[in-house]
Amino acid sequence: MDWKSRPSSRIRAIGRSDVADILKLSERPEIISFAGGLPDPDTFLVDEIARVAAEVLTDTGRAALGYGPTPGITPMREWLAERMTGWGRPTRVAETLVTTGGIAALDLLAGVLVDPGDVVVVGEPAYLAALHVFRSYRSQFAGVEVDQLGMVPDSLETALAELQHRGVKPALIYTVPSFQNPSGATLPGDRRRQLVDIAARFGVPIVADEAYRDLRFEGTSPPLLSALDPDNAIHINTFSKFFNPGMRLGWITAPAALIEPLIVAKQTQDQCSSTLGQYMCRAFARHGFVDRQIARAIEIYTRKRDAMVRALRTHMPPGVTFTRPEGGFYVWLTLPPGIDSGALLDTAINRENVAYVPGSSFFHHSEGQRHLRLCYSYVAETTIDEGIARLAGLLGHALDNL
Amino acid sequence: MDWKSRPSSRIRAIGRSDVADILKLSERPEIISFAGGLPDPDTFLVDEIARVAAEVLTDTGRAALGYGPTPGITPMREWLAERMTGWGRPTRVAETLVTTGGIAALDLLAGVLVDPGDVVVVGEPAYLAALHVFRSYRSQFAGVEVDQLGMVPDSLETALAELQHRGVKPALIYTVPSFQNPSGATLPGDRRRQLVDIAARFGVPIVADEAYRDLRFEGTSPPLLSALDPDNAIHINTFSKFFNPGMRLGWITAPAALIEPLIVAKQTQDQCSSTLGQYMCRAFARHGFVDRQIARAIEIYTRKRDAMVRALRTHMPPGVTFTRPEGGFYVWLTLPPGIDSGALLDTAINRENVAYVPGSSFFHHSEGQRHLRLCYSYVAETTIDEGIARLAGLLGHALDNL
Repeated sequence: MDWKSRPSSRIRAIGRSDVADILKLSERPEIISFAGGLPDPDTFLVDEIARVAAEVLTDTGRAALGYGPTPGITPMREWLAERMTGWGRPTRVAETLVTTGGIAALDLLAGVLVDPGDVVVVGEPAYLAALHVFRSYRSQFAGVEVDQLGMVPDSLETALAELQHRGVKPALIYTVPSFQNPSGATLPGDRRRQLVDIAARFGVPIVADEAYRDLRFEGTSPPLLSALDPDNAIHINTFSKFFNPGMRLGWITAPAALIEPLIVAKQTQDQCSSTLGQYMCRAFARHGFVDRQIARAIEIYTRKRDAMVRALRTHMPPGVTFTRPEGGFYVWLTLPPGIDSGALLDTAINRENVAYVPGSSFFHHSEGQRHLRLCYSYVAETTIDEGIARLAGLLGHALDNL
Repeated sequence: MDWKSRPSSRIRAIGRSDVADILKLSERPEIISFAGGLPDPDTFLVDEIARVAAEVLTDTGRAALGYGPTPGITPMREWLAERMTGWGRPTRVAETLVTTGGIAALDLLAGVLVDPGDVVVVGEPAYLAALHVFRSYRSQFAGVEVDQLGMVPDSLETALAELQHRGVKPALIYTVPSFQNPSGATLPGDRRRQLVDIAARFGVPIVADEAYRDLRFEGTSPPLLSALDPDNAIHINTFSKFFNPGMRLGWITAPAALIEPLIVAKQTQDQCSSTLGQYMCRAFARHGFVDRQIARAIEIYTRKRDAMVRALRTHMPPGVTFTRPEGGFYVWLTLPPGIDSGALLDTAINRENVAYVPGSSFFHHSEGQRHLRLCYSYVAETTIDEGIARLAGLLGHALDNL
């Protein structure tokens, strides 16, 4: 069988992820990697998770090991509804859906809302895995500007008006409102209000991916987009930050009329998410471990963010600017004109033993060469200064040779 | 937002599952349900699973709670390769992919092999969740006859020749070779050889869903389709039978050139399957618990199959025939002409308090009215006789009124 010729048009549309190659290369032990956006395993409450595993298997083992309902086990959905209500988005159980992680949530939403050829409106730079998911449903993209405060409302309005003028009704707007991947930017409250107003006015659903919201190191959280407009703003989230990524759990909060077709989509995606994981997660929350884990994660990531910002201030040559995120995993660098982060990557990895993700990976077409993403979450805190010094040396050298 | 008008063409193509409604109705405690194809929770080795959970979290907690590689953790893939090799299909690690259960495996394969409008060749009656998955990729179907020995080779050859004559190259052939859902039929060795030869001759991949293979009560297993043709026959399977459904684990064995695009598809489906589940499953197998669980399941299901066949022989009116499966979960009934299993369902559930799935649910267009599926795996053994007596009474009454 000639398998090379078989893959469907959707697989050809997703294309190869150059980031996967970077992550593979950056696994070499001599490399200080700021590439992968992985959580620090020190943030996992391993003992507490072992305790809830034992408890759940002793008390409700048979139920926890069987199939569960497609939208999630009821106690889990009830807890999600409570949690969302506490976050200012009054939520009923029928407005919740448990998913197999954040990407699976996006896959379900894209599968329900995106028909081939539909336009998805994304802030750029954008979370690249989300672009891959939308592409797998044969979407087109319209890019909207993202600045240091996140998606720019005027740019969204212009893009939607232009599309409307051409008779195009976009399938959805996708945004990461808090500590955006890759820019680290957080939308302030007034922008959030403007964005949901614009989306509602044009009749386009807005999907807010709040994967990093709980990892706030300072300041206070602006309102959820779905609290500002429960009817049109869809909330997606992951349990990877308050529990662990290894159980693959996430969720969607949306109007019940949208949850229904999402359940149909989930029946053909994986039928149900891990029942044992849901029982364990619910017990973990009941014991108060969720808040304990978030506190521990914030403590660890704050130290790492500080170490990275300090190192950038110390080592970076003039003309290189960078964000100082109030939470999340990422710092976004902007290089002086004439420097291409993609062109330098090979030297960075193979000669300087330092890895990052070039900015162009976060744009749907060729752009972003002057940017790069640094992730501080996974790297050992003690190696951050050395890694940044190596990168700064490389950039300084490139600047000298311009 | 008018969410009712938003769902994509693929969601509309999947349609509503009437089986979901039947399963919901049949949850009422007074109902003896032969409807849902669920495992008996008594088959789960709860204590052993608790033991491996504790062991894995103590020994390798941080790794087990983090993200894993998209195709699966290496020790798991090595074990799968060994297991498949032991089953007569020599397998390298690169030919394996861990999935989030059996449906997720089908979703990945359909996503890689099926373009909108492509024809999928299915034996009928067919596993209805598989039909939903294929429909979600906008497939068309070509039906092939299934008799008491499974898919009929001549019927496959005729269907493929007809399609070829019309210039149509099917995307794949889908079959459940062992204890088929819903017919209970198992393909004997000679048919397996004929089927893989026909598939290879027409250049069409054949997907063998071996979800029930290990649950053989008597006799010996014929060779795997993928052992007979490792290049063209794709093996999919689930861990729900040897481990538990609650962790959502399954796998695909296929040529490495097909595993590659499947990994791309999995990156946009769920990124990776439960890491903790994979570590636990590997440890469960290492302790020899897999074989212990299979032995226990076979013991329990053999008794239930026997109870059902005995009850059918005792109670069914003349003219009703049924299969006696050598394994798996299902018995398939054929009713005398003039009786429609779908039309009787409402009375069965609401007056007789007994539930089943009508035969028409397993055909891609309207057919199968003279059949119904009975599942013995989940129902309490002691209620089987009473449930069959109720159903026999209903059928007898319908026959009297013909």
